[in-house]
Amino acid sequence: MSRNFAINMVGQDALYAVTFNLFVMNRKLLNEIRSTESPEDDRFIVDLQSLIKQKSISATKQGLVECANLVLNIMQNAGITSELLYLDRNEDVPPIVYGEVKSKANPNGKTILFYNHYDVQPIEPVELWNQDPFSGKVEGDYIFGRGSADDKGELITRIKTVEYFLKKIGDVPCNVKFIVEGEEETGSMHIEKYLSVYREKFLCTGVIWESGDVDEKDRPIISLGMKGILSVELIAKEASKDVHSSLAVLIENPAWRLIRAIESMRDDKGNILIRDWYKEARVFTKEEVAALASEPFDEHEFKREYGIDKFLNNLKATEARKVLAGTPTCNIVGFISGYTGEGIKNILPAIAIAKLDFRLIPDMMPQLQFERLQNHLQKNGFEDICLKFVDGEPASRTSISHPLVHIVIEAATEAFGTSITSVSAAGTGPMYYFNKVLNVPCISVGSTYIYANIHSPNEFARIDLLRKTIKCMSKIMEKVAATPDF
Amino acid sequence: MSRNFAINMVGQDALYAVTFNLFVMNRKLLNEIRSTESPEDDRFIVDLQSLIKQKSISATKQGLVECANLVLNIMQNAGITSELLYLDRNEDVPPIVYGEVKSKANPNGKTILFYNHYDVQPIEPVELWNQDPFSGKVEGDYIFGRGSADDKGELITRIKTVEYFLKKIGDVPCNVKFIVEGEEETGSMHIEKYLSVYREKFLCTGVIWESGDVDEKDRPIISLGMKGILSVELIAKEASKDVHSSLAVLIENPAWRLIRAIESMRDDKGNILIRDWYKEARVFTKEEVAALASEPFDEHEFKREYGIDKFLNNLKATEARKVLAGTPTCNIVGFISGYTGEGIKNILPAIAIAKLDFRLIPDMMPQLQFERLQNHLQKNGFEDICLKFVDGEPASRTSISHPLVHIVIEAATEAFGTSITSVSAAGTGPMYYFNKVLNVPCISVGSTYIYANIHSPNEFARIDLLRKTIKCMSKIMEKVAATPDF
Repeated sequence: MSRNFAINMVGQDALYAVTFNLFVMNRKLLNEIRSTESPEDDRFIVDLQSLIKQKSISATKQGLVECANLVLNIMQNAGITSELLYLDRNEDVPPIVYGEVKSKANPNGKTILFYNHYDVQPIEPVELWNQDPFSGKVEGDYIFGRGSADDKGELITRIKTVEYFLKKIGDVPCNVKFIVEGEEETGSMHIEKYLSVYREKFLCTGVIWESGDVDEKDRPIISLGMKGILSVELIAKEASKDVHSSLAVLIENPAWRLIRAIESMRDDKGNILIRDWYKEARVFTKEEVAALASEPFDEHEFKREYGIDKFLNNLKATEARKVLAGTPTCNIVGFISGYTGEGIKNILPAIAIAKLDFRLIPDMMPQLQFERLQNHLQKNGFEDICLKFVDGEPASRTSISHPLVHIVIEAATEAFGTSITSVSAAGTGPMYYFNKVLNVPCISVGSTYIYANIHSPNEFARIDLLRKTIKCMSKIMEKVAATPDF
Repeated sequence: MSRNFAINMVGQDALYAVTFNLFVMNRKLLNEIRSTESPEDDRFIVDLQSLIKQKSISATKQGLVECANLVLNIMQNAGITSELLYLDRNEDVPPIVYGEVKSKANPNGKTILFYNHYDVQPIEPVELWNQDPFSGKVEGDYIFGRGSADDKGELITRIKTVEYFLKKIGDVPCNVKFIVEGEEETGSMHIEKYLSVYREKFLCTGVIWESGDVDEKDRPIISLGMKGILSVELIAKEASKDVHSSLAVLIENPAWRLIRAIESMRDDKGNILIRDWYKEARVFTKEEVAALASEPFDEHEFKREYGIDKFLNNLKATEARKVLAGTPTCNIVGFISGYTGEGIKNILPAIAIAKLDFRLIPDMMPQLQFERLQNHLQKNGFEDICLKFVDGEPASRTSISHPLVHIVIEAATEAFGTSITSVSAAGTGPMYYFNKVLNVPCISVGSTYIYANIHSPNEFARIDLLRKTIKCMSKIMEKVAATPDF
């Protein structure tokens, strides 16, 4: 029942779109519309399943071109004029799926650009999945699989919103464009180049960003920023092969070297000890501080979900939103060295490898931070450790006072019954390049339940939230068309 | 050619055995014996190959009982009265292969006990082997495979020595016993119990230990001691699953915790910082200091073999033998946490696991050292880290002045043309329990080339050294029979 309720609400929004809010539907009429269930309502689930089934892991470059073609196909079937964009077909850069629909009613009006990605995170540790990570299995209100939430679920809500308008009224309220990339999970290495090369295509009034969270009380979180990131790999080597551990009196253990190097970067409270690390870090404005104070945070639910009984440094819950939005991190993503199988094998490893990620906040630039890290290793006697730049993206924050922010808040509140405005997400995406190349605001809003196991085993999307998000997107398009002054 | 040369030298030793040194063979006669090649000369290689082909990894308990039966079979075929000994068949303890031959000529004389093991180290990293680790492939003078050197190659030299005596003269010069265990590579957890339960069987005059090294100049190293060991596993856990790394501002990273815990145990010079760690550590006697000073150490060859250009702490080569014999270690065997695959996956791991081994010297007892490590973690704020005892063995040193030491030095010098006497090996074995239960000296001498990749990929045995070792063992047996006063 709840499924059909939500999709009929989208139907109602489309009716609004046709008549430009000329009438208010009464409760009786609404109930009548709810009762006329259409067999095509569930088509978006089938399309989402086909997207989940198509592997597209950017870390291993698996299935990317195939998935781009599938997205192209789904968009074209929806009536969106679509094409694959390439930088250079000889290079191994996954294509961008570009799409657009001009509004017949408002061809010279505002243009919304939907930003999404078709690539997904790796599936490891595979053994912790309760089902095939690429099954797209539906159980009750849940659809499981890698990418179900991040970001194939989000993408399908936007495609289906446009499809819905085109099928029901033969038009869209405002101009709409799509940019669906294939490298988001590995740091969007080519998005800036794509935006620059195809700048004319992407020109718009504002960007509706991918990956909008919905909290444990079903409140959509409208997020106005993203942290940046610097991901690196560190490799320490010593002997030319693993050797008998009795030689540890004579041969340096690279795991020890790497542990010391990593340990020198951060104190046990999480403060980063690399010289000038925080030099350019932007402080919150008064407006942002006020907004942060009013952002809800369910301490109990968060701790229950992650199975923890205290926060890092025994931080108070009232500080949680502030650190999520504005505190840089130095995090160990992975570490491997030596024998890690069953029992014991008394060796001294030849090599140790660590992967670290540093979340950055606005005005900290990844390349400069990387150089600082390089200097840190050199000045602290770790010049033998090989440091590799894996990926980097600067942070971004959109001003709370922008008119498009107001529109999105209204639309989300109407679609979900409530909403939360967040100064910045804790995660990372390439918002910065959109700000820089297109000079437009980026606002994140969407369907991803915050405990949906994104980047983890058993990722899922909630179908009820996908439906509400389709409603939210249609309201945004209507409101953009109806708001002349921005 | 070199293969047959060596085996004929053993043939010559047997002739000595028959006539009790009544004649000296001249060079012409020696050359004649060399030219009469016997088809049975290479049988020991075939038997060694069959042992290598039989997997017997004690860390994973793979193929242990099968390998014990194969050893039993080879020993029985050699004419050794053999049986499998068990502690409790209901427990999962691998059997010991016991064997004995009484000397008809000297039934009430001395008894040599050969100590060896049929279990091997794991084969990881498998991808670095140039051939199947269980092939037993012969290339020129090398036989490859896990266990080819450590310890199946050593074992076969001793079985074949006895077989040779029995087939050629129908007797052995002195009484001989075999104890071949299946848990050496995982710390000989049950050897003390086996020695106690079957003490009467194992009573002897002295033990010829497994795993004797031969240096880069083909000098056998007669080793009079072994370091002890304590192997542990440390596990840090925090969140109930891997989570998105943006949450690193709120959730403790267990890899950080574990790194800090490990880092607190040892300074960067290798000194162990755990309270009272060195309290019982025995210092070298004057005799031992003198012996250590005369032990050769080929710095250039060592560094070339392991691909290093300096020693830990820029230690001088003149100190190498001293630290190998007498310096305790704290070594990282393995460390794993989080995402270690291709590219990057921005997670905060749920768990981090480290395996450490500590080499101990005489009078440091593993259980007490483990308790000190436990206290260290608790007193330094790491009480949340789970510490597991994996295995432990105390160290042992036999006095240089023991008469059996003199016999072994003579035998090895005659068989190899030269020899080195070492105060202690850098490695570990359960010598301590033989000292304790049987109250006898243990002396290591054998066939293992020091760069034979034991515990590493591409382990091999040198066939020429196996042949020389058969000669050495037969000389030891003869000299024990001929030396009345010990």
